[in-house]
Amino acid sequence: MAPQLDGYFKQVDTLSDHFIERLRQAVAIPSVSSEPARRPDVVRMGHYLRDQLTKLGATAELRELGKQPGTDLNLPPIVLARYGSDKNKRTILVYGHYDVQPAEKSDGWDTEPFELTVKEDGRLCGRGSTDDKGPVLGWLNAIEAHQAAGIDFPVNLLMCFEGMEEYGSEGLEDLVNEEGKKYFADADAVCISDNYWLGTERPCLTYGLRGCNYYSIEISGPGADLHSGVFGGLAHEPMTDLVRVMGSLVEPDGTINIPGIKEQVAPVTADEEGLYDGIAFTMETLHESLGSKTTIFEDKKKTLMARWRMPSLSLHGIEGAFSAPGAKTVIPAKVIGKFSIRTVPNMEIEKTNDLVYKFVEEAFKKLNSKNTMKVYAQHCGNWWVASPKHWNFEAAAKATERVWGVKPDFTREGGSIPITLTFQEATGKNVLLLPMGSSTDGAHSINEKLDKKNYIEGIKLLGAYLHYVAEEPMN
Amino acid sequence: MAPQLDGYFKQVDTLSDHFIERLRQAVAIPSVSSEPARRPDVVRMGHYLRDQLTKLGATAELRELGKQPGTDLNLPPIVLARYGSDKNKRTILVYGHYDVQPAEKSDGWDTEPFELTVKEDGRLCGRGSTDDKGPVLGWLNAIEAHQAAGIDFPVNLLMCFEGMEEYGSEGLEDLVNEEGKKYFADADAVCISDNYWLGTERPCLTYGLRGCNYYSIEISGPGADLHSGVFGGLAHEPMTDLVRVMGSLVEPDGTINIPGIKEQVAPVTADEEGLYDGIAFTMETLHESLGSKTTIFEDKKKTLMARWRMPSLSLHGIEGAFSAPGAKTVIPAKVIGKFSIRTVPNMEIEKTNDLVYKFVEEAFKKLNSKNTMKVYAQHCGNWWVASPKHWNFEAAAKATERVWGVKPDFTREGGSIPITLTFQEATGKNVLLLPMGSSTDGAHSINEKLDKKNYIEGIKLLGAYLHYVAEEPMN
Repeated sequence: MAPQLDGYFKQVDTLSDHFIERLRQAVAIPSVSSEPARRPDVVRMGHYLRDQLTKLGATAELRELGKQPGTDLNLPPIVLARYGSDKNKRTILVYGHYDVQPAEKSDGWDTEPFELTVKEDGRLCGRGSTDDKGPVLGWLNAIEAHQAAGIDFPVNLLMCFEGMEEYGSEGLEDLVNEEGKKYFADADAVCISDNYWLGTERPCLTYGLRGCNYYSIEISGPGADLHSGVFGGLAHEPMTDLVRVMGSLVEPDGTINIPGIKEQVAPVTADEEGLYDGIAFTMETLHESLGSKTTIFEDKKKTLMARWRMPSLSLHGIEGAFSAPGAKTVIPAKVIGKFSIRTVPNMEIEKTNDLVYKFVEEAFKKLNSKNTMKVYAQHCGNWWVASPKHWNFEAAAKATERVWGVKPDFTREGGSIPITLTFQEATGKNVLLLPMGSSTDGAHSINEKLDKKNYIEGIKLLGAYLHYVAEEPMN
Repeated sequence: MAPQLDGYFKQVDTLSDHFIERLRQAVAIPSVSSEPARRPDVVRMGHYLRDQLTKLGATAELRELGKQPGTDLNLPPIVLARYGSDKNKRTILVYGHYDVQPAEKSDGWDTEPFELTVKEDGRLCGRGSTDDKGPVLGWLNAIEAHQAAGIDFPVNLLMCFEGMEEYGSEGLEDLVNEEGKKYFADADAVCISDNYWLGTERPCLTYGLRGCNYYSIEISGPGADLHSGVFGGLAHEPMTDLVRVMGSLVEPDGTINIPGIKEQVAPVTADEEGLYDGIAFTMETLHESLGSKTTIFEDKKKTLMARWRMPSLSLHGIEGAFSAPGAKTVIPAKVIGKFSIRTVPNMEIEKTNDLVYKFVEEAFKKLNSKNTMKVYAQHCGNWWVASPKHWNFEAAAKATERVWGVKPDFTREGGSIPITLTFQEATGKNVLLLPMGSSTDGAHSINEKLDKKNYIEGIKLLGAYLHYVAEEPMN
């Protein structure tokens, strides 16, 4: 049955200016994790969250992570907090991050990036508004609105907010694994609000992410870089070999040439076949976000399948070759080609690596070059797919329909959020990605914004989700 | 008939300590043209040369070239000088440069780079010793030894010494073209001493250089760099296309795949066939300078032909792609591949460019990519071959045999010295490259040196060359 949420929703509306003020305070702290000089601001942001949570009656602590590897800088603390510990309630673990991408007005911002600007059309502009301060504060705001409305909080809430997400989540994975059966032991499900709607109109729930295996091909020959006048034509050139091998990996239409990759991909089920047409996604908006019409497919279904459930191979670049503007007549002595494969169910990391190594080794051998080649994986992260039939998703779907008046799209994403899989594995529980912002928020770009509507309705959504969670039967 | 040179040679030996002292003074001026902070030292070096030349009775002047484009720095002056203006003598124009490559002790030098150190084995160590202060001072020393020995100087000597050679010879080409029929009007031949023996034992005279056409292939698609998770598999990737096109240009064994290139190459004559075996060059020393055994050919003749008289194509790198260490999951939006073709007789620049453009355009078209491609030449410099039968070379050959006791190798080089062709075209006269140093001098490396024997015998060689020049019949 549908929970009685009207009182809560009304309170959120009443407090909306206050919640925007809270976002203003958070945006004003320039917690840029990638800039050493801003590290004190990142730490200040962690303290701010801890203090706000404590004021709201949560038990909050700061977990120090020691030095950032390779530097003398302390990592910013992870904020761990608990609100409620009623054994008769479900416990939901939520994750977010309080650090942000770099931003300077001179990058091309219309407004000061660290001053929240409320535009007439409702845009709340500022660095971190949508990624991820708005969603993180969403949880705090949901607690406060319940208190103000005098409505019992429907679940126990565990919170994990980190300050290094935009710079590799240094230290987080270890902590989550460590606390999986300790601080997070009684979590019944996990909810992460750190992604976006597929478009701007229809909310979505995200249940899958692609993995990523990242490879290097290293080819070397001469003892040092050579002058192409002196040595051109008489020595085997590592670049010539590398470009050949890289060129053999993938076709211009995206087809991966490595045997055994597509054979691992889960077949499309009849259920799935029908799933794509209903998704709120158009080729027009894709062309807009791409900035060109250079898509491989003309239709939505093939495009979504390519992003969500098919592997892809991208060539990222070459280390050691000439890469500056202008002209340099160098024969690079050692070049390292970088490429990655986005992985999907049911690809296996080790098997995929072996197939890649075999293919690259054979391709190099065919060249009959006297140069030396090695190929290796730099890092591998697995794909993640959760069950969208789990009560965690059912609850979120009902909450979405209640707040937004439409059924959400069930989506997957092409990118990786490695911590999703870590939470799933450390807790053994279902993980839901429940986005607040929309596709045009410009998370890592200039003029990042969160629409006021998405922020305020998003606070309602997070609270409603927790109420539906409390009501869902186990499944 | 052989000139009477014994008196001159004896005088050079007598003055050898004085000549080493002059080299010490020159090396002590750190005339690094690429470092703005050293520019006053470069200028000081130009003044030093002008003053030394004036003391020796030459008419010397400093030609100012104005500002270095894109900077507020004055270019160092070109030293123009004339010694003698006897209408009954031949006039020889010589070129050299008084600037040097950067050098810091901390780069790994055994000695202070700007303090000439005379080693027990005769090495004169110091930046600029062989490139090109030793050879430049060689001409001054030859004048002084003639004066001291009371021997009439056999020719009129025109000198052109620049201070920007190691940084693009800014301003030189214009000056040479300008003065070709003015300051240099009565030159009968040109001699440049700024290259090296092929090995360490046998002197050489150099009569050819390859040219260089440098190309860019620009491929673009998306409006900005993309996240490979979000867009991998659904958009045409410029890197995929570029690597394919670059890979089609050349085989791992150096064969150029562009039709019409090899068809332009001058056929090997019967004369030429016999020329390579006698050259003092071994695969062992080549492997040493290469730092590996990754040569394409196993034999000396094919290797020398590849360097001297065959075109080659080298892939230098890619601008716009990921080139740093580590891993970045970017799909670069616009990538620019750089490659160059070393050109040889009888290749024509325009024809070669047209063949390259056509080939690249067709290769890209075959990809059926929606991306956009353009190909263009960044710069083109023609090959140069002089007649080694000219009296200029005959004189140098006789002088070499007289000083070193062996016939010189007649060599070509794989690299380009664009000013060689400029002097030839501006004066319309034969140009000879007459090296003083040997292949192990390490011109641009740490521990640059000129062997005392090469310096002192080199001074004799330059003087002897001028005497034989005076005796040669016109041809």
